[in-house]
Amino acid sequence: MAKGQLYGIGVGPGDPELVTVKAVKHIEKADIIAFPTAKGATGNAKRTIEPYITKAHQLISLTYPVTAGPVADSQTYLPLMKKFYDDTAQEMKAELLKGKNIAIICAGDPFIFGSYMYWHARLSDEFETIVIPGISSILAAPVELGKPLCHREDVVSIIPATLSEDQLVENLTNSTSAVIMKLGRTFPKVVNALKKAGLEDKAYYVERATMQNQRILPVLEVDPTKVAYFSVVVIPCQTPE
Amino acid sequence: MAKGQLYGIGVGPGDPELVTVKAVKHIEKADIIAFPTAKGATGNAKRTIEPYITKAHQLISLTYPVTAGPVADSQTYLPLMKKFYDDTAQEMKAELLKGKNIAIICAGDPFIFGSYMYWHARLSDEFETIVIPGISSILAAPVELGKPLCHREDVVSIIPATLSEDQLVENLTNSTSAVIMKLGRTFPKVVNALKKAGLEDKAYYVERATMQNQRILPVLEVDPTKVAYFSVVVIPCQTPE
Repeated sequence: MAKGQLYGIGVGPGDPELVTVKAVKHIEKADIIAFPTAKGATGNAKRTIEPYITKAHQLISLTYPVTAGPVADSQTYLPLMKKFYDDTAQEMKAELLKGKNIAIICAGDPFIFGSYMYWHARLSDEFETIVIPGISSILAAPVELGKPLCHREDVVSIIPATLSEDQLVENLTNSTSAVIMKLGRTFPKVVNALKKAGLEDKAYYVERATMQNQRILPVLEVDPTKVAYFSVVVIPCQTPE
Repeated sequence: MAKGQLYGIGVGPGDPELVTVKAVKHIEKADIIAFPTAKGATGNAKRTIEPYITKAHQLISLTYPVTAGPVADSQTYLPLMKKFYDDTAQEMKAELLKGKNIAIICAGDPFIFGSYMYWHARLSDEFETIVIPGISSILAAPVELGKPLCHREDVVSIIPATLSEDQLVENLTNSTSAVIMKLGRTFPKVVNALKKAGLEDKAYYVERATMQNQRILPVLEVDPTKVAYFSVVVIPCQTPE
């Protein structure tokens, strides 16, 4: 029997219309839709593609054993996550060998901080894979903010907020535009780094870009106790002339 | 009479299926499709959305008066481009005032080095605008290369090749992953910078990602006389574990 195909599908920032035509087509071709979620959550990626899910689809939840927040030290976190990816890759392998096409969906883009890449590394040698890029929040947040990210000779840095404050300052200082990802409890550190880099007045907080409960605020007006993981800080470029 | 709406539509890297559902919907709602092109060229953005253009659409070509290549000095280039954006914005304003909906399409994403932003700056105060993000080559090139761009604590730099060699080296040294855009005659300088940063063996050249004539090569195997503008250099992250 022919093996099934694996689709790694980026479904964009949340608006079901910001899914690509190619993503919709491969969701239709999939027998199984697998979606990563935190414990007890529905998952933004699944919510995004609900208009495209039919009764013929088998749904598999890939539930993370931990979130990065509570298990801060990488000595505990990384081995737990590695085992999770190993185990779930084995489950999917069994289905692919039965000839089932599996779509692993992820919010944003699969190859920019996307979980899909860990399954890709485990399965793409053995099975035919099709990776479909998605609208990352790097693109969606500036659009919702109404300010272009970069033009002419701008340099953009995409920075994870999990870096140290010094590293954040260094990266912010070396670029003209920036997007800071992986926010949450890291937010006070990010604000300190923005102040040290002299960028606190140019930075915007964009939460849940394109979702119904989207919030946009200047960074200095944000309550640090109410920062969502699905949010980014954007430092846009100057207004194009 | 009601004014028309302005749509700034990113149509992605070239594959007509990598257009979003929202983009297709707004191409359908547009009376006029305006597309930027170089003199004598068809324009990649127009070619990308050909399956969605109907006979009811009026097409307007926005032909750049110069390309960045031949007019290298910004003292000549910038005023010519400013006049071009001013004049064409006036033309579009006349149509918007007649109640026509205009879609300005651009390759990739409108707010990441996209020409649309210059018309947006001139027209968005007066007319209702809807900006639709598109799959930038920043996302499409790593997917075609088959290598994730960033994971965990990676920092990505998006760098225009028009910077000086020293600036290129500095930005490459400060990041773990990178995408270098605006290639062409800048290519030998980029290769020198990659060598100085010790990254020449980790860098890939991705030309016309997702188009039919796509080419992917290690940077050191590229003939610098045959480098297309629609290409990027990608330095992907390490394989996820």
